[in-house]
Amino acid sequence: MTQPQQRIANVTAATMTDDGYGLLENATVVIDDGLISYVGPAAEAPVATADAVHVDGTGQLLTPGLIDCHTHLVWAGSRADEFAQRLHGVSYASIAAQGGGIAATVRATRAASEDDLVAVSAPRLAALMREGVTTVEIKSGYGLSLADERKQLRAAKRLAEQAPVSVQTTLLAAHALPPEYKDNADGYIDHIVDTILPTLADEHLVDAVDAFCENVGFSVAQTERVFAAAQQRGLPVKLHAEQLSNQQGSVLAARYQALSCDHLEYLDEAGVKAMAASGTVAVLLPGAFYFLRETKQPPLALLREHGVPIALSTDANPGTSPILSLQLMLQMGATLFRMTPEECLQGVTVHAAKALGLNDRGQIKAGLRADLCLWKTPQPAELTYQFGTDRLAAVWHQGVRR
Amino acid sequence: MTQPQQRIANVTAATMTDDGYGLLENATVVIDDGLISYVGPAAEAPVATADAVHVDGTGQLLTPGLIDCHTHLVWAGSRADEFAQRLHGVSYASIAAQGGGIAATVRATRAASEDDLVAVSAPRLAALMREGVTTVEIKSGYGLSLADERKQLRAAKRLAEQAPVSVQTTLLAAHALPPEYKDNADGYIDHIVDTILPTLADEHLVDAVDAFCENVGFSVAQTERVFAAAQQRGLPVKLHAEQLSNQQGSVLAARYQALSCDHLEYLDEAGVKAMAASGTVAVLLPGAFYFLRETKQPPLALLREHGVPIALSTDANPGTSPILSLQLMLQMGATLFRMTPEECLQGVTVHAAKALGLNDRGQIKAGLRADLCLWKTPQPAELTYQFGTDRLAAVWHQGVRR
Ligand SMILES: [Zn+2]
Ligand SMILES: [Zn+2]
Repeated sequence: MTQPQQRIANVTAATMTDDGYGLLENATVVIDDGLISYVGPAAEAPVATADAVHVDGTGQLLTPGLIDCHTHLVWAGSRADEFAQRLHGVSYASIAAQGGGIAATVRATRAASEDDLVAVSAPRLAALMREGVTTVEIKSGYGLSLADERKQLRAAKRLAEQAPVSVQTTLLAAHALPPEYKDNADGYIDHIVDTILPTLADEHLVDAVDAFCENVGFSVAQTERVFAAAQQRGLPVKLHAEQLSNQQGSVLAARYQALSCDHLEYLDEAGVKAMAASGTVAVLLPGAFYFLRETKQPPLALLREHGVPIALSTDANPGTSPILSLQLMLQMGATLFRMTPEECLQGVTVHAAKALGLNDRGQIKAGLRADLCLWKTPQPAELTYQFGTDRLAAVWHQGVRR
Repeated sequence: MTQPQQRIANVTAATMTDDGYGLLENATVVIDDGLISYVGPAAEAPVATADAVHVDGTGQLLTPGLIDCHTHLVWAGSRADEFAQRLHGVSYASIAAQGGGIAATVRATRAASEDDLVAVSAPRLAALMREGVTTVEIKSGYGLSLADERKQLRAAKRLAEQAPVSVQTTLLAAHALPPEYKDNADGYIDHIVDTILPTLADEHLVDAVDAFCENVGFSVAQTERVFAAAQQRGLPVKLHAEQLSNQQGSVLAARYQALSCDHLEYLDEAGVKAMAASGTVAVLLPGAFYFLRETKQPPLALLREHGVPIALSTDANPGTSPILSLQLMLQMGATLFRMTPEECLQGVTVHAAKALGLNDRGQIKAGLRADLCLWKTPQPAELTYQFGTDRLAAVWHQGVRR
């Protein structure tokens, strides 16, 4: 069914089409068939259709719909008790020895049905949507077997079927070592490249492939095997890189034209240059930085100097960023990383789209998807400043007002 | 009009009546006439009235309604642009020279009408209420003249008339020096003690009196004059103390049996001991700690050792804690200050009530106000862990379900 034309008049549009906000004052945005068909002065807008729906923006700010480009949103179980134990002085080692940490999430996620996973994850997605998120990336990585990685990715896709939001799925089978492959990381990588990745790719469950390259994760050589298998299938790659140490994972990722490298506190200039050359986005994750009380700052000055696009995301996950709020990431990007409000907003719109390889959204431009947020303020800097009040006046997802 | 009896059955009640959660499993809570009339096992509950309303808690967690005991919620204007300037490299000194900082908020608040203040503050209060806040303290301190302090406090009272929430008002005329008293702090203190405080106390606008004791604020001697005037009127005092340096304000406050000392990053053992002796609550404000990127930790170990009750609050204000989320403070209290989940929950219930001198709320106990939150989890530790999802199943304010 075709939707009637919608015309959002009298807005301050942050189009995100230049190096800053790309602000257009007194703008009109026209939506036809789920796409933006016009953005500009009212006087130059095409003539309204007879059945057009008119929205008065009353001078408020219109931005692209927000994009959360790095989440582990689908998981079962809770690690709140572990957190409480740590705060009562129990060591991480002792919790891990009891089967805690990511192993606990893997056990709970494996034990859950696909329906369970959809049910427990839906309120998390709702939290993001309530703040204006129209596209969210969801990674697997708590299944760590063919059946359980499939279950996670299928649950992620189903979330998008039952709510007006778009989901991109990323296969992160190389997230941790499953118990079946204890002391045999190479054997697990074999299983990923021979079985998990090709099977789930054939089932159209994989939009991109990711890995956790770290001294406590997978090596650069193991990561490269995963990337090569992805490349063979024509799937783009991304990487959890240089979070806890500098493994030069970003250099490897750049060689594979990775869409993004994520975390990056320990990224050095060689990595920055490699990412700049390959057009790889730096996805910064202030929620994990905050929650882990990290003090090493990602190299903002180098990223700026070399023109690497910077995105911001929640990294929503049960262990190291239990935070379902992209608006809080805007606040934290500015407060903790000293990103400018322009950079923060780019980070959850145009650069987040690029981190997902999507060029049909993330800006307000004719021809792009009509994913839009209308905010109860005319000032874009407010979005990175005051946190907690409900500022969202309206959201459109593919032209449908939700 | 009398309300029918309400019976909330099958809950895990965090009564906050002992040194931790005071958990009662399979509990029933009975509400009569806005008060808790019973909490305990269903089998021992009084017989239900004929018209009783039954609520099945389905095993979920019931806590006291949350109390935000330190806010500057009523202000006009926005300092988002200042924040943006700072992130673009403009110095604080240069912004202050342009009339920015607290001076900007004072100008905007003075220029606003009482109606304006109510209108712009209501969404902030709504944000707190949406997270389960049933009592909120609101300070003046952006008026800095008799008429403008009155206007702020009247706006605060009106917010409570138009929403199901309780407001406690605190006179913070000694917050900053108004331009009329430039280089004449003692003259302004005269004006406070001779005119502002007695007048507004007589108008029943003042539940407590606060001051900002700091090398960039008021001296201990000036603070004491304000406290003496409050004491003369029978008004309890509180203090912004030892935030940026140790002025021994907490020792002074303890001499005046202050309800609370707030911030306290620079508090030393002498101050802790004085507070312990006077029963003064330590109100910690992780939002300001976070936003100012403070690294000096409040002395948690000393506070615990000496048995000082610890509260947590948003410090919601336009300049140093632009954060309207008490649930985020629970998360930050644990993450940034390493408070245990029990301490965090005490900090927004029983100890927050004590910080406001209120002994009729903050616990689930027969005879207290039926200010209650029902949460979509049985685990109290969840409240300090995962942030962002809408966990609130129901809220009662003075027995009325809102
Ligand atoms: Zn991640
Ligand atoms: Zn304050």
